[in-house]
Amino acid sequence: MAMTLGELAAKIGARLRGDASLPVTGVATLAAASDGQVSFLANSKYHDALRQTRASAVILSEADAANWQGNALISANPYLAFAKASSCFAPEDDAEPGIHPLAVVHPTASIHATASIGAGCVIGADAVIGASARIGANCSIERGASVGEGTRLYPNVVLCRDVVIGARCILHPGVVIGADGFGQARDGEGWFKVPQLGSVRIGDDVEIGANTTVDRGALDDTIIENGVKLDNQIQVAHNVRIGAHTAIAGCTAIAGSARIGRRCMIGGAVGIVGHLEIADDVTVLAMTLVSHSIHKAGVYSGSHPIEEVGQWRRNSARLRQLDELARKVRRLEQRLRALEGDKDND
Amino acid sequence: MAMTLGELAAKIGARLRGDASLPVTGVATLAAASDGQVSFLANSKYHDALRQTRASAVILSEADAANWQGNALISANPYLAFAKASSCFAPEDDAEPGIHPLAVVHPTASIHATASIGAGCVIGADAVIGASARIGANCSIERGASVGEGTRLYPNVVLCRDVVIGARCILHPGVVIGADGFGQARDGEGWFKVPQLGSVRIGDDVEIGANTTVDRGALDDTIIENGVKLDNQIQVAHNVRIGAHTAIAGCTAIAGSARIGRRCMIGGAVGIVGHLEIADDVTVLAMTLVSHSIHKAGVYSGSHPIEEVGQWRRNSARLRQLDELARKVRRLEQRLRALEGDKDND
Amino acid sequence: MAMTLGELAAKIGARLRGDASLPVTGVATLAAASDGQVSFLANSKYHDALRQTRASAVILSEADAANWQGNALISANPYLAFAKASSCFAPEDDAEPGIHPLAVVHPTASIHATASIGAGCVIGADAVIGASARIGANCSIERGASVGEGTRLYPNVVLCRDVVIGARCILHPGVVIGADGFGQARDGEGWFKVPQLGSVRIGDDVEIGANTTVDRGALDDTIIENGVKLDNQIQVAHNVRIGAHTAIAGCTAIAGSARIGRRCMIGGAVGIVGHLEIADDVTVLAMTLVSHSIHKAGVYSGSHPIEEVGQWRRNSARLRQLDELARKVRRLEQRLRALEGDKDND
Repeated sequence: MAMTLGELAAKIGARLRGDASLPVTGVATLAAASDGQVSFLANSKYHDALRQTRASAVILSEADAANWQGNALISANPYLAFAKASSCFAPEDDAEPGIHPLAVVHPTASIHATASIGAGCVIGADAVIGASARIGANCSIERGASVGEGTRLYPNVVLCRDVVIGARCILHPGVVIGADGFGQARDGEGWFKVPQLGSVRIGDDVEIGANTTVDRGALDDTIIENGVKLDNQIQVAHNVRIGAHTAIAGCTAIAGSARIGRRCMIGGAVGIVGHLEIADDVTVLAMTLVSHSIHKAGVYSGSHPIEEVGQWRRNSARLRQLDELARKVRRLEQRLRALEGDKDND
Repeated sequence: MAMTLGELAAKIGARLRGDASLPVTGVATLAAASDGQVSFLANSKYHDALRQTRASAVILSEADAANWQGNALISANPYLAFAKASSCFAPEDDAEPGIHPLAVVHPTASIHATASIGAGCVIGADAVIGASARIGANCSIERGASVGEGTRLYPNVVLCRDVVIGARCILHPGVVIGADGFGQARDGEGWFKVPQLGSVRIGDDVEIGANTTVDRGALDDTIIENGVKLDNQIQVAHNVRIGAHTAIAGCTAIAGSARIGRRCMIGGAVGIVGHLEIADDVTVLAMTLVSHSIHKAGVYSGSHPIEEVGQWRRNSARLRQLDELARKVRRLEQRLRALEGDKDND
Repeated sequence: MAMTLGELAAKIGARLRGDASLPVTGVATLAAASDGQVSFLANSKYHDALRQTRASAVILSEADAANWQGNALISANPYLAFAKASSCFAPEDDAEPGIHPLAVVHPTASIHATASIGAGCVIGADAVIGASARIGANCSIERGASVGEGTRLYPNVVLCRDVVIGARCILHPGVVIGADGFGQARDGEGWFKVPQLGSVRIGDDVEIGANTTVDRGALDDTIIENGVKLDNQIQVAHNVRIGAHTAIAGCTAIAGSARIGRRCMIGGAVGIVGHLEIADDVTVLAMTLVSHSIHKAGVYSGSHPIEEVGQWRRNSARLRQLDELARKVRRLEQRLRALEGDKDND
C-alpha cells in the first residue's frame, strides 16, 4: 500500500508543498506518527503536537501550514482529506465471493454470484442479496429481506422478514433490523399485541453501529433515508423517519413515529419522544430529552449539570422547591413595591 | 385473508354500521388506506385524517362515529379493536415443526415434536423446548434452559443455563436471558467476581424486545411476571422483579434488586436505581431517574427541559448556584421584613 | 460440593466461631437460607433478617457477630468472604476441550489443544485462541483476533479483526469488540467514512457484560486495562482508555477518546463526553452526564430529581426561567439596598 506523497496528494485532492517523491506507508496521529507516515491537524488547539510530530507530512489548512516547516498537504477541509488518505491505507477486505458450505440458503433466495455469504449464515425464502454484498458469519436473514449492491453485514446481524437495505450500506455486528415495533393495546389489565405489519426501508450509503436496533412499522414502514449514519446501540422505534445525511451518536433512543429532518446531528444518549418533528439541520447535544417538536434549525440542549455530590444534593433540594422560590420572589417584589410606594408618599 | 366486513366485526367484537357484505383485504392508517382496507381512529385529534380517508371502513368510538358517514366498526376501545383486526391480516408464520439438520441439539435435550428448531441453533444438555415453540436461526440455548409452549424466539437469541421462559412468550432478535448479574466484591484495589447462582424466571405471555438483556440472580432468581412487555435494549439487572402486565419502553435501565409493581408503565430511557420499590399502577415518564421508592400510584417525571443552547447555558449556570440563590432570597426576606417593621414603627 | 464449615472457613479466610464439623451444602440469602446453607450480612440494616434466618452459619463482621448466636464466619470484609464462599458452590463448567465438528476454523487460526470451541463458531485466519479458553456457541471471531489463556466467551460474541483479549477475561453473550468507531468527515451535505485503522486491546481479568460494545480506534487503539469490570449494554467508543480496576454499571455511554482513571466507579446510564479525562478514584452516580474533565477524586452527580408530574411541570417551567429569576433577585437586592440607604439617610 506504499505510494509517494505526490500520488497521495492527488488522491485526496490536497495541494502538496514539499517532496512529491517521498514514499508514504501509512497514517497516524501527530503524536504517534513516525518516519514515512502522514498525519493531520484539523483543530488548531493541537499546535503543540504539530511542533513535536515526527510525521513525514501533515495534512492541514492553509493557515496552519504557515506554522509548519515540513511536507504539507494543504486542504480546505483537513479532516476530510485525512479521511481520504486513511482510506488509502485501510486493509483489503478478504471476503471471497460465494456461499460458504456451512451457510444455509433457502432455495428460493437469490444470491448474486459476486456476493459473499459467510459460514453460519441462514438466509430465508425469497431473500435477495445484491452484487458484491458481503454477509458476515452467523447472520440471520429472514424471508423476503433484501440487501443492496455492495452492502456489508458484519457477523451476527439479523434482518427480519421483508426489510429492505439499500446499496453500499454497512451494518456492524449485532444490528437487528425489522424486529416488531412496541405496539400493545390495553385489554383489561393486560395487553393485546398490535401486529407490526409494516417493514423497514433503509436507503443507500447508510452505516449502522453495533447492536443498534431499528424496528419495523406498525402499518407504514420505518424509514431511514440515504446517507444516514447511526452509531452503536441506538434504538429506532416503529414508524420513525430519519432524514438524509443525519448523523446520530451512540445510545440514543428514538420513540415511535418521530420524524427527524435532514443533516441533523444528534448527540449521544439523547432521547426523542414519539410523534414529534425535528426540522432539518438541528443539532441536539448529548443526553438531552427532545420532549416537543423543534421547528427551527439550531443547537439545542437539556442535560443537567454535573457537580460534586454535596453541592448537587443542595441544589437538587432547591430545584424541587423552585416554583415556591419563584413565588417567594414575586411576593418580595410586591412587598418591595409597596415599600417603595410608601417611600414616595413620605 | 379476505373476509367480509360483517365477519371482521364479529371477530373483533365491534358493532357494525354499514355494509356487512363488503369484502375487506387489510388494514392501514387513515392516510394510507385505499379501497378494501379498514382503518381506525383512536385519538380524536386525527379527525382531519378521518375526513380525508379512502378507507372502506373505520374502527372508531360511538362519539367519533357521529362525524363519519362511511362504514363504521364501533367499539368502546377502538385501538384494541384495531389491534384485533390487524391480527386477522398478519402474515402466517412459516416455521415448520422439526429440527433443522444444521441445528445442534444435545442428546439429553427434550424437543417437543411440534416445536421448530432453526438452522444454526445450538441447544445444550437437558434443555426443554415445549410444544409449538419456534426457535429462530442461530439461537444459543444453554444446558437446562426451558422454553414454554407456543413461545417464539427470533434469530440470534441467547438463553443461558437453567433459565425458564413461560408459554406464549416472544423474544426478539439479540435478546440475552440469564447472563451473569454484575456482582463484584472489592478485593484490594481490584474485584472478586461474585458467582451468580440464581436464575431467571419469565412468566407467560411476556414479550421482550430486540437486544434486551435480563441478568440471572446472584442467589435468588430474577423474576418477570406474566404479561410483562419489554421494548428493545432494556437492561434488567440481577434479582429485579417486574410485576404482571407492566410495560416498559426502550432503553430503560433497571438496577439490581429493584421491585417494580403490576400494571406500571415505564417510559423510554428511564433509569431505576437498585434496591427500591415501585408500587402498582405507577407511570414514569421518559428519561427520568427513579432514585427512591415510589409508594403511591400516579405519574412521575424527572427529565430536564430542552432549550436553545444559549438559554440552556445561562439557566444551567444558575442551576449550579441555585442553593445560593435560595439563600439570597431568604436574606432578602429578612431585610425586607426589617424594613417593613421600621416602616410600621415610623 | 459439600464440605464442612471448618473447611469453608479456611477456604474463604474467615474466623470460625461455632461447629467446624457442620456439613454445608450451599449459600443463600438470610431470608431464603435453610438447613445446611451459609448466608451473609454485609449491611447492618438487614439485622432483622439476621434475627429470623434459618441459615446454618452466617458470614459477618466482628461487630455484627455480637448480635448473632449461631455459627459465625467472621471477616473484615463479609461481602468478599461471601463471594469466595459462593464460588465454592458455583456449578462446574461443562465445556470440553476441542473444536466442535460444526465449528468453522480457518486453517491458519491457532487453537490451543486445551481450548474449547463451541458449535456454530466461525474463527478467521490467523486468529489465536489460548490455553483453556472457552468459546461459546455461535461466536464469530474475525481474522487476526486473539483470546488469552483461560478467557471465556459466552455464546454469540463477536470479535472483529485483530482485537486482543487478555487472559482470564469473561465476555458475556452478545458482546461486540472491535466494530468500527463512529468516524465521519463532513463531505458536502453528506459524510465520508473515516476508516478505523486502530484496534482494541483488552487486558487481563476483564469482565464485559451482555450486549456491551467496544469500538476499535481510528488510528491508535481503544484500551481497557487489567481488572476492568463492565456491566451490560455499555458503549465504549473509539480511542477510549479505561484505567485498571474501574467498574462501570449498565447502559453507560462513553464517547470517543475519553480517558477514565483507575479504580473509578461509574454508575448506570451515565454519559461521558468525548476527549475528556476523569482522574483515578472518581465515583459518578447514575444517569449523570460528565460534560467536562474531572481532575480530583471524589463523588459526582448530575441527575435531575424525580417528582410527581404536576410538581415537576411547575418546577420545569421555572427552570426555563431560572436566569431571569436570578436577575430579578439581583434587581430586588439593588432596590432593597437603595431603600435601606434611604432609611439610613432618614
